[in-house]
Amino acid sequence: MPVRWEESHAFVASFELTPTGEGPLTGLTFAVKDVIDIAGWTTGCGNPTWAATHPPAVAHAVCVEQLLCAGATCVGKTVTDELAFSLLGQNAFFGTPLNPQAPDRVPGGSSSGSASAVACGLVDFALGTDTGGSVRVPASNCGVWGFRPSHGLISVAGVLPLAPTFDTVGVFASRGEVLLRVAGVLLAAPPEPAGEPNTLLLVKEAFALADSEVQQALAKPVQQLRAHLGSRVRELSLRDLAGDEAGASWSAWYQIYRVLSWAEVKSCLGAWIAATQPPFGPEITASFALVDQLDRCQVAEAIERRERFARQLHRLLGPRDLLCLPTTPTLAPRKGEQISRTRGGYYPRTLAQTSVAGIGRLPQLSLPVGRFAGVPVGLSLLAGPGQDLVLLSLAAQLAEPLLGDG
Amino acid sequence: MPVRWEESHAFVASFELTPTGEGPLTGLTFAVKDVIDIAGWTTGCGNPTWAATHPPAVAHAVCVEQLLCAGATCVGKTVTDELAFSLLGQNAFFGTPLNPQAPDRVPGGSSSGSASAVACGLVDFALGTDTGGSVRVPASNCGVWGFRPSHGLISVAGVLPLAPTFDTVGVFASRGEVLLRVAGVLLAAPPEPAGEPNTLLLVKEAFALADSEVQQALAKPVQQLRAHLGSRVRELSLRDLAGDEAGASWSAWYQIYRVLSWAEVKSCLGAWIAATQPPFGPEITASFALVDQLDRCQVAEAIERRERFARQLHRLLGPRDLLCLPTTPTLAPRKGEQISRTRGGYYPRTLAQTSVAGIGRLPQLSLPVGRFAGVPVGLSLLAGPGQDLVLLSLAAQLAEPLLGDG
Repeated sequence: MPVRWEESHAFVASFELTPTGEGPLTGLTFAVKDVIDIAGWTTGCGNPTWAATHPPAVAHAVCVEQLLCAGATCVGKTVTDELAFSLLGQNAFFGTPLNPQAPDRVPGGSSSGSASAVACGLVDFALGTDTGGSVRVPASNCGVWGFRPSHGLISVAGVLPLAPTFDTVGVFASRGEVLLRVAGVLLAAPPEPAGEPNTLLLVKEAFALADSEVQQALAKPVQQLRAHLGSRVRELSLRDLAGDEAGASWSAWYQIYRVLSWAEVKSCLGAWIAATQPPFGPEITASFALVDQLDRCQVAEAIERRERFARQLHRLLGPRDLLCLPTTPTLAPRKGEQISRTRGGYYPRTLAQTSVAGIGRLPQLSLPVGRFAGVPVGLSLLAGPGQDLVLLSLAAQLAEPLLGDG
Repeated sequence: MPVRWEESHAFVASFELTPTGEGPLTGLTFAVKDVIDIAGWTTGCGNPTWAATHPPAVAHAVCVEQLLCAGATCVGKTVTDELAFSLLGQNAFFGTPLNPQAPDRVPGGSSSGSASAVACGLVDFALGTDTGGSVRVPASNCGVWGFRPSHGLISVAGVLPLAPTFDTVGVFASRGEVLLRVAGVLLAAPPEPAGEPNTLLLVKEAFALADSEVQQALAKPVQQLRAHLGSRVRELSLRDLAGDEAGASWSAWYQIYRVLSWAEVKSCLGAWIAATQPPFGPEITASFALVDQLDRCQVAEAIERRERFARQLHRLLGPRDLLCLPTTPTLAPRKGEQISRTRGGYYPRTLAQTSVAGIGRLPQLSLPVGRFAGVPVGLSLLAGPGQDLVLLSLAAQLAEPLLGDG
């Protein structure tokens, strides 16, 4: 789909940073979410007051240096939701990047511009950040590959800290082969032979509680995986994922993520917000108001539960075992649609599912293999911690027949 | 050793934050390095310009909330080296906290005040941060227990980012039993039964290339470990640690740490320094000048080598396997002694040894079991990633006879 640069509304700045070396990314172009430093530019983080109160970056973020050194060319900075604190991709100051396959729907956020730039075919790949779903959700919405790495394996130096326990730098690409090469560079990990998974574990509640449009969009790809893998496909419940009854409902997962991420967001941004009183768009204003009301006495219990669930996830996911669930439980919301952070609303439902990777510090890949009435729907695969390249090579292999059908 | 509060020069502020819950830390007091947020106070980071250009914290750091919730009482903020970027503990603005067992020597940094407060018996434990050794080195110098956790397991929200790939929150205590309880709370990890290690791996070059004072100080504790563990003690070389010839010399380890940490330090602090031009003490001025000259094209290769070494360390360290090396290759420098960041000097030698945990993202514990002419010398044990509680409980068991002799 040929979309012109300015029609995408994906960029806040364009330029050309030439490669500093040759390597596996030679000839590829990329874009960078505007929460990641590019030397000489003020990292704007989607909010004009942030830009006005911070000096320009003096160095590229470490992850950008890696890409330039491996031969890639950086062509611009992309729109982000304000302070990366939204899953929608509608910035009150910088607009809404185009979701080219579903133009009446949001691209998803907070890495909205990076997802859009890749979906519009304007770059080969793009960097985003993913704390609670900010790469995976827009990848699903826009119909591109979106990768969140194992926590801590890709440097976040020169990247806005939002909630450090969950913050990651992730990657969008329209082709699995490109994503594999980019991830190999960023993770400095050796290539993994393609092959077959040991077990594919379908999370029952994730499929059962998704909207029927999502169920329908993913029915055929899941059916194809079942046909291909036979008895290696197993269903398991949320209770199995958590290892105890406390994790048997999605709300338990959401609560862990909500309490910890809000506590960390306040630690990272609260002092600046209190001192500066920046104007925010209405959605972000409401979100920070909620963050401010968090009872921090809940933090200790949330951490205990988080670590208990994480240990169980690590026990569960042996080598070449994959978890599988819909990336999001709903289609991308329509532009301007009312979105809720309260019980049963868009945020709690979506964040519960994206929290599995965050809680387990696991790598997750959203594959653009589903579609409902033309609207893209991502199917996600997760693997054990540090199994990023195994995940990507298995997924590339598994996705081939699914994509051929797309 | 009874040292009065004001004689320690360890604190920048004292107050009392009462516990918000009851738990395993009820009745214990602690202090917090002044790079970690306490609500209502500006986190000063050891530099007056930093304090003047940053608003007060609106929340306690997440790690502080955990401790208060588990019953501990926070009694003050401690002196840190400027922006946590030194291993010495001599702050040009805030002075040099007392090293009570070796008053003519530096306490070590950057968590100088926290180490001193514990060594002086003024608190039961203290929080520090450890990027390149800032808990382990002062723990060794001051003769207390010092723990650096596996990277990513203790929240750094509300803590100054210095080099995120290496940044950790660590703990000082004068008793192993207290350290074990505090780490259990922060890591939210279940207690590990004490017991015996599988293998104790002595790093040959670490002992062979240490100063003779350090060799002498640690000879008896190492001899006791050998006698106790018999054939479970093995020697291995740096080459074995790295898995290839590239890692056979300490300088290779130091170079990885130097390039990556300096690149990240510049990403985290460079823009503020360029915009603010803060006055620093002479040592820190020189250090940041070196950081500024780093050729960032070295970053990609340093990351590749780092990940290769890390994978080998993870292969090497099975359950209940411990690495053992002197915490530092020298005694604590004398106050005012000339200190070098160039080849063969204090920094390259020390950081090479402390880099093993950083490169491998491994937990490390410095045990106060050595002494040369009254000057404390730490012996370090490391374990595989995530094996923090196993490390601490094995170490507590192993240290008992060594400490009885101290």
